[in-house]
This record gives sequence, C-alpha cells and structure tokens, in this order.
Amino acid sequence: MKCEIISVGTELVLGDIVNTNAQYISRRMAELGYDVHYHISVGDNMERVVEVIRNSLQRTDIIVTSGGLGPTDDDLTKEAVCKALEIPMELDHYTLDKIKRHYDILNKKMPICNEKQALVPKHANIIENDNGTAPGLIIEKNGKIIILLPGPPKELIPMFDKKIYHYLRSKSENIIKSKTLKVIGIEEPLVQEKLKAIFDFQTNPTIAPYAKDSEVHLRITAKSIDERVANELILDLESKVKVILGENIFGNDLDTLESVVVGELIRREKTISIAESCTGGLISSRITNVPGASKVFTNSIVTYSNESKNKFLGVRQETLNNYGAVSPETSKEMAIGIKNISNTSIGLSITGIAGPEGGTKEKPIGLVYISISYDDNVKIFKEKFSGDRERIRRNASSRALDIIRREFLQV
Amino acid sequence: MKCEIISVGTELVLGDIVNTNAQYISRRMAELGYDVHYHISVGDNMERVVEVIRNSLQRTDIIVTSGGLGPTDDDLTKEAVCKALEIPMELDHYTLDKIKRHYDILNKKMPICNEKQALVPKHANIIENDNGTAPGLIIEKNGKIIILLPGPPKELIPMFDKKIYHYLRSKSENIIKSKTLKVIGIEEPLVQEKLKAIFDFQTNPTIAPYAKDSEVHLRITAKSIDERVANELILDLESKVKVILGENIFGNDLDTLESVVVGELIRREKTISIAESCTGGLISSRITNVPGASKVFTNSIVTYSNESKNKFLGVRQETLNNYGAVSPETSKEMAIGIKNISNTSIGLSITGIAGPEGGTKEKPIGLVYISISYDDNVKIFKEKFSGDRERIRRNASSRALDIIRREFLQV
Repeated sequence: MKCEIISVGTELVLGDIVNTNAQYISRRMAELGYDVHYHISVGDNMERVVEVIRNSLQRTDIIVTSGGLGPTDDDLTKEAVCKALEIPMELDHYTLDKIKRHYDILNKKMPICNEKQALVPKHANIIENDNGTAPGLIIEKNGKIIILLPGPPKELIPMFDKKIYHYLRSKSENIIKSKTLKVIGIEEPLVQEKLKAIFDFQTNPTIAPYAKDSEVHLRITAKSIDERVANELILDLESKVKVILGENIFGNDLDTLESVVVGELIRREKTISIAESCTGGLISSRITNVPGASKVFTNSIVTYSNESKNKFLGVRQETLNNYGAVSPETSKEMAIGIKNISNTSIGLSITGIAGPEGGTKEKPIGLVYISISYDDNVKIFKEKFSGDRERIRRNASSRALDIIRREFLQV
Repeated sequence: MKCEIISVGTELVLGDIVNTNAQYISRRMAELGYDVHYHISVGDNMERVVEVIRNSLQRTDIIVTSGGLGPTDDDLTKEAVCKALEIPMELDHYTLDKIKRHYDILNKKMPICNEKQALVPKHANIIENDNGTAPGLIIEKNGKIIILLPGPPKELIPMFDKKIYHYLRSKSENIIKSKTLKVIGIEEPLVQEKLKAIFDFQTNPTIAPYAKDSEVHLRITAKSIDERVANELILDLESKVKVILGENIFGNDLDTLESVVVGELIRREKTISIAESCTGGLISSRITNVPGASKVFTNSIVTYSNESKNKFLGVRQETLNNYGAVSPETSKEMAIGIKNISNTSIGLSITGIAGPEGGTKEKPIGLVYISISYDDNVKIFKEKFSGDRERIRRNASSRALDIIRREFLQV
C-alpha cells in the first residue's frame, strides 16, 4: 500500500529542528512492508496544510501526520484533516476528562484552550497518549487511512510502537517480526566488517545496523505469512550473529545497558556504590533510572574537587599530589574507598578529563580511568574517548556500565 | 519569495537516513528572509520526481533540490528537472575534464557512467563542487529559480555556504533576525493565555511557542531590509513579553537552565553541593555537564537508601522513622547536612517518589520535596510531578535548578 508522511510545524520549514519523526515512521512502515512514497513538511498554515492533505489523498492509501495536535491556535492538523475529508468535529468527553485529570494531578486549573485537544473528527478511533495530553487519531474513510500523531518524539514514538504499529500490522498482508540485538564495545564499521558475509546475502530476514551513541543496534526483520516461520528465521540469524559478536551483545529490544546491569545485580542480590568525578553523577543517574534500582544501589558520591576525593573517599593526599586526580592510582583508591564506606559488594570509580579545558599532552581531553573493586579484586581500566564534553561523559558512563557487566557479572 | 526544498533519494523515504539537508537549507534561507513553505522527500523514481517538481513550479518562486546528482542510474534529479522545465541537456566539457582529472589524481580510469555527471541543462549556471565530482546547478527560467545541490552533506554544506548563500543574498529583499526566549515554571497553554494579546496581533515580528520538556521556548522573528530595524523590532517585543512573563524567563538562545545557574554562581563566587535521592545523580550530572562547573560544584552525595541518608548526611534516625524518607523534615535535614559537610555556600536536597512503585495515598508517585539551604535560611518546596519515572526525575531536576535560580540567585 502507498503511504505518505506529512509533518506539520513551522519549526520544521524554518529549519529549527530536524525531522526525525518522518524517518522513524518511514523505517517502521518499511518493516511492515508499506511503500512510503513521499515525506512532506509544511508550516502551521491552514490553507497549505489542507491543500497538502487533499493532494496526498488523491494519490495514496495511507497518510500519517505528525505534529499540530496541541492546544494552541497554531495547532491545526485535526481541523485541516477534517476540512480535507469533509468530516465534522465533535467533543470527546473521555479525552476531556483525561486532560482535566492531568491538570488536577498538577493541582492546576485546565486552561480553556486545552479543551480543543478533546475535539475529534466524528467516527475517529482515538489513541490514548501516555506521555502527553494530545491523543492520536485513526480515521478510515473511502478506503483511505489517515493516522494523526503528536509531534514530540517522546510522545510519538511510544504511541507508534505500542499502538499504531499493531494497527498497521493488522492491515498488512505479511506478518513482520523483528528483533534488535544491542551491541557495545565494537564500532559500527567493524561490526559491518565482521558480519559482511551475513550483510551481503540478506534477503529474508534482513539485518540493518544503527549506530547509537556508543552502541550499535542490529535490527533483524523477517517477513512471512506465518508468525512461527518468521520467528524461526529470526532465531536462526540471531544465533549466527551471536557466534560472531559474542559478549559484545549485551541485550535486545527494550534492554538498556543499565537495565541489564541492574537486573542482573538484583538477581544475584549484589549491591553497588559509585564514586564519580568526570561523569558528575551520570552513571548513578542512569542506574537509578531503572525501576527497582533501590534494591542494589545504596549511594554514590560525586567528588568533583580534589578535597572531596580525600575527605569523602579517603583518597590519600599523597596520591593526589604525586599522581593527580586523573590517574590509575587515584581511580583505584576511589573505588576501594567508596566500596568500604558504603559496605557494598561492588565499588565503581571514574575519574577523567571531560574538557573542553584541562587537557595536557600527558593527560589529554577524553582520558578516563575506571576502576572496579569487589571481594579482594581491584581492576583499573585506562580509556580514551573523543568528541565534546557531553559525548565524552556519555560514552565514559557507558563504558563504566559495560565494565560492571563484563568484569563482575560476566554476562 | 516562496521556496520549496525537494530532497531526492530512496534512502530518505525508507527511513534509512534523517533529512538533515532540508533543515540546513531551510535555516540558512530563513536567515536570508526567504519563506520556505514545503519540504518534500521523494524516492529515486523518475515519474514521481518529475511530478513533484512540476507541482512545485506551479506554486513557488525558488526550488532547491538535494541529491540525485551522482553518476549511477538511480541519480535522476537533473534529468527530471529538465523534463519538468522542458530544457534540453548538453555536455559541459569543462566539467567533464574536471571529473577526468579527479580520476587521474586517484590513478584510476573514469568509469563511463561518470560522463553523465558532465551533462547539464542548457544555459544552467554550473557550481563547482570542491568536495566531490557532481557539480551543483542554478537554472533561471520564466522568473523561477531552481537550484540543484548534491546529496552528501559534506558536499552540500560547503557548496551552499561558499556559493549558493551569496547568490541567494543578492536576490533577497529582506534580512531576518530571530531570538528565542526560554521560559520555565509555567506551562505552554498558560503562556499562550498570558500572551494572547501579543499572539493575536503578531505580524512583524512574529512569535511562536515550542514546548520542550518542562520549558517553553518563545521564538521571536523579525524581518526588515535594515538589520538595525530588525534588531529593534525584536528588542521591543522581547521587553513586552518580559513584562508579562517576568522571572519565568530564564535565558535565551543557547542558554540552558544549568548553564544559567552555573554561570551566575561562578560570577558571584558561590559554591554548591547537592544531596540527591529520587533524582539519583541527575541534578549533579546536569550541573557538571556545563564547562567550568568545577569552579562552583564541589561534590554531591546520592543517598538512595535510608541508611546512607543517616550515615553520610546526618539525617537523624528519628526523623526517618517518624516522617519517612520522603518528607519535608528529611528533605530539610538533607539540605543542611550536605551544606555543612561540604562547606559550600548552598546545600540543595531532593527526595521523592519517582515510581513506578512505592506510591501510597498519602505519598503518591510524583511527590517530591526540594530544600535549599544557604546562610541561615532553609526553604522547603513541596512539588508534584506527573508522567513516568524518567519524566518525573527530569522535571524534578529542572524544578530544583529553577529553585536555585529563583530563590538564591534571584535572576
């Protein structure tokens, strides 16, 4: 079936933001076997949006829109679609109640303009929004399907994954199954090289790599009229990939590095404490973002100054003077220090130079030491990351989590 | 003048890549005062590309295309443009020689298909490509301008900046200036309501709101033939908005909440330490993501367990027993505790219930206490956030940063 993706928002045509939604929707629809013929972005202008939708309706089977479902005057996608399709709007009381409850929880009065978000095209299928107030909509009319999605990716993506994907799958002739393998510790070009024989001969299932921060995600997609066959095709390719990439694969689909680490620590009833310098709380923040983290994570100390490394972690003044804050010696004492004062199974430490200042020839920006202490072991890892401050911090925190996984958990 | 950007490439409509070219070209054209009305992406299909170009020629003054200028069969933009405009193609010998030289340097023989890259629309202005073999093209016909650019960003961006930008500036009547005001502590619908009189009567400058996590960004854009006038128009509207939104505006353009807080603490030579529970290191991580944070941030302690709140921060066991970890009393003792042991100007604490478990009727998910201690003051704030664990943590960390700004810095 032929599809078009229409993105509504002046910020797109002004070039304020990149249209990641169109890419996301396209990729997911391609997996389901749909042919996306066009992406169109248009500003918040009623006349132009209506014209674009009318034009697309003439040549396509499915239209997916993103954006323009908010409460304000320049949010006009719903109205434009109704005009183009000649459908009236009506108030949906369930949605209105939901928006009112949202404001009740916040102890705030709902602004009148929010009522607009509860106006829906007659006979439309309303898709709840778990991450915002604007619901999505599915309209079926004269053999055409029009799907309206909210603009913010953190609303659009979960709505697409949880609800729209299944709806579209039910309309598709084939069953498409897919599984994402998540890889760390090996860069995308090397993954490509190692899997060359597999990449070169893929037809069904297909496999596609996506580089994400310090990870590579390998999406395996199988197509069949029989779900069992599709699953078997995936399992077969997955086992081939696992033989080649081994422990570089840390999880799949919804797993994150932190969820794998926390889950495994919970299972083994082990606890962890962390001493962070250059990452400034980022590792702790990632770990505690996992529900249930309180079962394994007791505390961390972010020691940014030298003084605090000595005072809170017991790093010796002599060590700091002789080797500096960014050194294997300091890193080691930090890991042992945090483990001892916190009385946990594992003590993890990280110290490094995130930049943009503070680099020297001997200790360049991106140099990071990570130590892990457990039982009577301490292992120290010297790492070098590239990029800006944010990227160095992010990749260093990923490496630290991966060290817990590989060294302590060995999964 | 009205413009459209047409991106040609099957990889775009398959969702394999994000269309960063359209954003780049749009942003640069907006700076020059051009009105970009549409972005269109279309696959490598002659019929569809010709149709898209014909359609755009009917309604627009300038078309900028990207992609489809390469040597292979599926590179068809030039041919499609010639078909739509009814212009013949001719061989450009200068371009052909250049491509041949390129292969000479590489000590390779030019593949025959590359000759295609030297075919150009008759009377077209040829734009040299310093970073690849496909030249760009400018065609002027019947009052319309069609600009063809190569697809790879590392070819397109330098070509645009060095050559196309100046060409377009010479054709433009206006200069566009814009400024973004960043707002926190007030939701988008209420911002709209408060600024209704301004929104309703905007022409030049225009003002548009964008909701971003817990912030609202207001983009003011002015158009004039005179840069000074454009700047004055912005300043005038900015001052009106500031009267209405007051201290809810925390910065503009590249400012972030954390960069404003850190910058202001540096200026006043004040230091801060943080005791985090529910946010698990996120506030510290955001603060230390700002370059120069080490001047004001000494340390933080993430006390996730009750025991660690007592051990590291000196929260009394009695307080924890009587009121619980999520209480104004515990929050207060955490703030005083972290300030005293860290010897900083400010002690900030946060404790709450991020979910998805642990909520009760009295202490529901999303309940958060934030305390700030400085000099002899301690102020305690009771907050309620909605959404999932990540959203609650994110918004709670923003509120904590905003409390530092409003209560201590008063900017």
